Amino acid sequence: MDKSLQELADILGGRCSGDPETRIGGLGTLDSAVEGKITFLANRKYASLVATTKASAVVLTAADNSYGRNAIIVDNPYLAFARLLTLFTTQPRKSRGVMAGAHLGEGVMIGAEVSIYPGVVVGNGVRLGDRVTLHPNVTLYEGVVLGDDVTLHAGVSVREGCRIGNRVTIHNGTVIGSDGFGYAPDGRSWYKIPQIGIVTIQDDVEIGANAAIDRAALEMTIIGRGTKIDNLVQVAHNCIIGEDCIVVAQAGIAGSAKLGRNVTLGGQVAIVGHVTIGDEAMISGQSGVMGSVAPGAVLSGTPAIPHQARLRAAAVFPHLPEMRKSMNRMEQRLVKVEGELVAARPGAAA
Amino acid sequence: MDKSLQELADILGGRCSGDPETRIGGLGTLDSAVEGKITFLANRKYASLVATTKASAVVLTAADNSYGRNAIIVDNPYLAFARLLTLFTTQPRKSRGVMAGAHLGEGVMIGAEVSIYPGVVVGNGVRLGDRVTLHPNVTLYEGVVLGDDVTLHAGVSVREGCRIGNRVTIHNGTVIGSDGFGYAPDGRSWYKIPQIGIVTIQDDVEIGANAAIDRAALEMTIIGRGTKIDNLVQVAHNCIIGEDCIVVAQAGIAGSAKLGRNVTLGGQVAIVGHVTIGDEAMISGQSGVMGSVAPGAVLSGTPAIPHQARLRAAAVFPHLPEMRKSMNRMEQRLVKVEGELVAARPGAAA
Amino acid sequence: MDKSLQELADILGGRCSGDPETRIGGLGTLDSAVEGKITFLANRKYASLVATTKASAVVLTAADNSYGRNAIIVDNPYLAFARLLTLFTTQPRKSRGVMAGAHLGEGVMIGAEVSIYPGVVVGNGVRLGDRVTLHPNVTLYEGVVLGDDVTLHAGVSVREGCRIGNRVTIHNGTVIGSDGFGYAPDGRSWYKIPQIGIVTIQDDVEIGANAAIDRAALEMTIIGRGTKIDNLVQVAHNCIIGEDCIVVAQAGIAGSAKLGRNVTLGGQVAIVGHVTIGDEAMISGQSGVMGSVAPGAVLSGTPAIPHQARLRAAAVFPHLPEMRKSMNRMEQRLVKVEGELVAARPGAAA
Repeated sequence: MDKSLQELADILGGRCSGDPETRIGGLGTLDSAVEGKITFLANRKYASLVATTKASAVVLTAADNSYGRNAIIVDNPYLAFARLLTLFTTQPRKSRGVMAGAHLGEGVMIGAEVSIYPGVVVGNGVRLGDRVTLHPNVTLYEGVVLGDDVTLHAGVSVREGCRIGNRVTIHNGTVIGSDGFGYAPDGRSWYKIPQIGIVTIQDDVEIGANAAIDRAALEMTIIGRGTKIDNLVQVAHNCIIGEDCIVVAQAGIAGSAKLGRNVTLGGQVAIVGHVTIGDEAMISGQSGVMGSVAPGAVLSGTPAIPHQARLRAAAVFPHLPEMRKSMNRMEQRLVKVEGELVAARPGAAA
Repeated sequence: MDKSLQELADILGGRCSGDPETRIGGLGTLDSAVEGKITFLANRKYASLVATTKASAVVLTAADNSYGRNAIIVDNPYLAFARLLTLFTTQPRKSRGVMAGAHLGEGVMIGAEVSIYPGVVVGNGVRLGDRVTLHPNVTLYEGVVLGDDVTLHAGVSVREGCRIGNRVTIHNGTVIGSDGFGYAPDGRSWYKIPQIGIVTIQDDVEIGANAAIDRAALEMTIIGRGTKIDNLVQVAHNCIIGEDCIVVAQAGIAGSAKLGRNVTLGGQVAIVGHVTIGDEAMISGQSGVMGSVAPGAVLSGTPAIPHQARLRAAAVFPHLPEMRKSMNRMEQRLVKVEGELVAARPGAAA
Repeated sequence: MDKSLQELADILGGRCSGDPETRIGGLGTLDSAVEGKITFLANRKYASLVATTKASAVVLTAADNSYGRNAIIVDNPYLAFARLLTLFTTQPRKSRGVMAGAHLGEGVMIGAEVSIYPGVVVGNGVRLGDRVTLHPNVTLYEGVVLGDDVTLHAGVSVREGCRIGNRVTIHNGTVIGSDGFGYAPDGRSWYKIPQIGIVTIQDDVEIGANAAIDRAALEMTIIGRGTKIDNLVQVAHNCIIGEDCIVVAQAGIAGSAKLGRNVTLGGQVAIVGHVTIGDEAMISGQSGVMGSVAPGAVLSGTPAIPHQARLRAAAVFPHLPEMRKSMNRMEQRLVKVEGELVAARPGAAA
């Protein structure tokens, strides 16, 4: 593919600066792009490279357009570059149909233009929307429902009755709908609480590799529209994750926790069960959240406290041993001072 | 299914209060149950809902039976409810046999009433008990032995020679018997220590999704009877996990660690290698255990200390910056006091 | 197999002590070995067992050879024992070829003596070296390249275009080349940044079970020669891991982080994105590294600080409540002392 700078500016809703007829055939970084490619400046740290890049054009803001290079002027160069990347790299979809070596159960309903690879096993009564892609060795249990434009990568399992919306992508090895971890002590050992709920994944969700989203005990675990979940994340039974959340790798959310909209959980964060995390809260990596969190709060540490307070306390932490010694010395000095004062009192033995 | 309140009371070993002929056809929460359903009161926080629930009967304790509702009186309403849930939701098992698209090696012995789905690959010399269910794309390597009533969900791998007892359930994607992580420096790089032991999983164990239990270097990694392991847990080589333990999601247990009976590890806990965790110890979420733990200890934090002491210290932690400032101010005041005392000594220059 | 002590000494480059004709048919621990077996002493804690072990010979250092037992004298008994273990337990490789139930795409090139099990799905244009073993239900996407002597265990996925060197072993369920976690806010929700790079795994790497190595956004994520990665580890997009690193279970490395040579990350460690970890740095378990790390540094804690300083501070941490109380008492005593001094000043009202 090859487009003029003006055509790309029009696609991005940006403004062309320099020669609008410049031909662009691909993308690269400021460092690595060659002639015929377009690059971008999102971080001013790299501004000096704009003058020297071999790229034929640069995506940047009006404020940064001071290099006399062919350019597309936009408000958000990073987003614009991502859109160009999509434009230049998206392959035309090719439907492969149901391939030999795939196994379909009874009463399966399949939409148009699907691709179902060898080793896929689809249970009875499953319904698949249009343009669904099931990569090799995906397993859908009985009664699963997938919307349109769903892509499940190799090795994904979706357990009985779970529902997945439109434009959802799930990466390899992830498990949707495994049993929640629920047992009651019965005086002898652990009695398993049947987990008869489901998982509902709303539209435009993406989930990384080898994650696990447990089915609800009775009703449903919900992953809200637009939420993005990274690799190796654990979502326990009955959780309700709001819309447009970001959950970074290896985070874990315990049972019945509720996240609002636009919540961000850093990597390896732990959220205890039965709490509510308010809209737009941000929890920094490795933090442990032990209670409910107000909307917009920015927390870190275990137990999590406001992020700035935690940074200040963590900066003092390495000084604890010297603080303790210093306190002990002060105590001794204080004892001495007190002794001298007693000795100096009128009437004291001199 | 539909049963009278008296029949259900008999099944639970409880006592019927109100109309024993009340027909019950299912279950629900205090909030969501409708007529014809039974609900339960396990947490007194919700006691006020007993008067208003639309359910036709309530499972509760004698102490809480003050609402004049149809009820079953038991000692442990949560456990009783779980038993009813099992009763009302358990489907009759249907053996599917060995389905087309499953691959069996040589010398495989198979019990009665098994279900082996498409995409399952069973290695040479494997032995399967009665009523074993192998969901799609399960892989059993050579020489694996499974007891009766074992269910392995889609994508589970059991490596060469590992042994699994009776009534064991393993959820999707979990790996039993991957090589332990053992290397010796050889002066140039890392020399792999062959991992020639196995994993033994005893009766009544349940393991969640995408967990990993490594085979022993020489002998066996053991998961004790009745132990329940959650999603994404790591059990390293040579670990011996006792009976009836609870290991919550994303916990990791390093090599050769030994857990007693009824140990509880919270989510994301780390246990270092070669330590012993005593019976009934409880380690709270995200804690890091650096040494052996006495029976019954309740620890938290990294490094883990007694839980109450840790809560008290963690409450002081955010105040470290002000403590440090306060100490510095006190030091200055002390210097001043000491100076005044010196100046006030008899014979000092006035 | 059965060899003389002298033959084994020659293989190990060690020296024989005692009867060189002693026949050795296997290995065991000091505790468990029986007649005809050889054992080893690597940890002096167990030295007393050398006198009493039932083994027919012991591998030990010259300094420890004071028991009059048949022995092989070497510098590194642990490494020597590992080599004997390899010698006694390695099975002759048997090529199984491409088995029924494996699915090969178009234009696949396959080396000599491969074993491709049922349920394996190999995409178009994949190239496999000699002696490659693909266990059941492995999926290779289009354009994947594997070197010689590569073993991929059941359920492994390698995504489009990723490259794996020679003598690489990857355990069950691990995912190579899932999309990096990259989104840009577009004012409405999250816009996905296409992840068009690959993963390159160099020679002699071993990766545990259920790990996830993400493909780069534009170029490549690299796992360096000889590096060993444990179970459930997360390596994010664009990471460059150096040679001979050790990454213990459940550690997570965020995007664009760079590890030098011989870096060790303990279990559950988190490394933030865009930092550099110097050669031979060691990060202890559960630590959180927030910035770049100098070569050879030994860090622990979150945020990570020098390990010894952290141990000292952690030892004081449980005393924080008493420190705070003690400070408050000292403050009161200081106020009293200051008052007495003021009262004692010449001219003060008495």
